[in-house]
Amino acid sequence: MPASPEAMVEELTEESCWELLGSAVIGRLALLVDGEVDIFPVNYLVKDRVIFFKSAPGSKLMNIAEHPVAFEVDGTARRDRWSVVVKGRAERMGFDTDIEESGILGLHTLDPTEKRNYVRIVPHTVSGRRFTNARR
Amino acid sequence: MPASPEAMVEELTEESCWELLGSAVIGRLALLVDGEVDIFPVNYLVKDRVIFFKSAPGSKLMNIAEHPVAFEVDGTARRDRWSVVVKGRAERMGFDTDIEESGILGLHTLDPTEKRNYVRIVPHTVSGRRFTNARR
Repeated sequence: MPASPEAMVEELTEESCWELLGSAVIGRLALLVDGEVDIFPVNYLVKDRVIFFKSAPGSKLMNIAEHPVAFEVDGTARRDRWSVVVKGRAERMGFDTDIEESGILGLHTLDPTEKRNYVRIVPHTVSGRRFTNARR
Repeated sequence: MPASPEAMVEELTEESCWELLGSAVIGRLALLVDGEVDIFPVNYLVKDRVIFFKSAPGSKLMNIAEHPVAFEVDGTARRDRWSVVVKGRAERMGFDTDIEESGILGLHTLDPTEKRNYVRIVPHTVSGRRFTNARR
């Protein structure tokens, strides 16, 4: 039963997904840590269809490259609500040139703890949905 | 280096976590599906420190009870931003009395697709952080 006569879900194009990813600043990273699923919010930026974020040293992200991660961003636009999920391989960047070119050094993070690990998610899949006329 | 002189992170009490969980309507569920991490937003409700949500039949949640899940909710309060993470075992409810008592039947969902699976997350751990004086 629809929530209202006009409520509907629309699959987003990859183009729209990247546009929306570029419009937000906080996403949620889901990953495996010691065999268990964990999730936490991160400030991020998008450049050339790659997601970049920072993390504190010695954190849960030590073995981040071992398993694919899932990264979700959602938001509202007028009466619609949208959600985009990126799945891919995350890796800590080891080269100064990669780090500098990504723009990550200027990324503001909510958590003021020093963050010296620079991570990128190279997407395998990107999918998104828009919930039209959603009550919020 | 702090983002601003006053920026700080505060660990939330369990009491505060539940209060914040009760104040929001959308969370993100992270779980293992066929050995890979997946994440998606769900409308939810809280009753007696249990998280309830609905899902469509035949969905990714078929084997949800096999592995612990992680559920994240975040939001803003004045200049602060908060995030709460619940980890626990999710299970589909099989008894009409459980379903009715949870209040899940009245839960509004963004996605108008019919949802006949009723799921609860019984938390093992609840943790939360508040980012004070965060620029957003």
